[in-house]
Amino acid sequence: LGLELAGIADEPEQKVKVAFLPRGGSELELLEPYPGDGPVRKFMEKRGEGIHHICLEVDDIEATLAQLAKEGVQLIDTTPRLNSRGQRIAFIHPKGAHGVLIELYQYMQNAED
Amino acid sequence: LGLELAGIADEPEQKVKVAFLPRGGSELELLEPYPGDGPVRKFMEKRGEGIHHICLEVDDIEATLAQLAKEGVQLIDTTPRLNSRGQRIAFIHPKGAHGVLIELYQYMQNAED
Repeated sequence: LGLELAGIADEPEQKVKVAFLPRGGSELELLEPYPGDGPVRKFMEKRGEGIHHICLEVDDIEATLAQLAKEGVQLIDTTPRLNSRGQRIAFIHPKGAHGVLIELYQYMQNAED
Repeated sequence: LGLELAGIADEPEQKVKVAFLPRGGSELELLEPYPGDGPVRKFMEKRGEGIHHICLEVDDIEATLAQLAKEGVQLIDTTPRLNSRGQRIAFIHPKGAHGVLIELYQYMQNAED
């Protein structure tokens, strides 16, 4: 399929190992849950392998969350949290997005500083 | 989320209406199945709303299909078919891709000619 592996990283916050496969301006991520508990392992035990979520990069994650909350969209995270690379992310609840788990992501240079 | 509607089209071959939401070099598609029968309606009746498939653009869809078949990947379409815009597409079976329905797509200029 012409997909190339750009790297593999641990994401202890979500308890997964992630392989990054960039393509065009987007990226496919393969997730392998840690043994034991964790949100992705739970998802797989319930629904099997498949597509877990999609992620959209936004310019201002706090403004986006505020706007969604104002529109009555059900959120998992009402304020951003940090992923393992120190970047700000937040999840919209699948009930607020027609059964689709959506991650919002705001890229910050020097987030690890 | 900053998503903008680029257009809506009928896809009678798949019995869906499609809304196109381009983002970066990719595109989100919202699918609304026609009333009655059809593959997407069947999917929704079984699994509810959610993510239906992902699509990857490839340079040479026939070579890609031949390579996948050679590797023993289970395919829905062993040869490309045409979508409603005359573009060549083919589906990999979810059983061949860890539960993910993958569409391959080769863009051809003048496909409608």
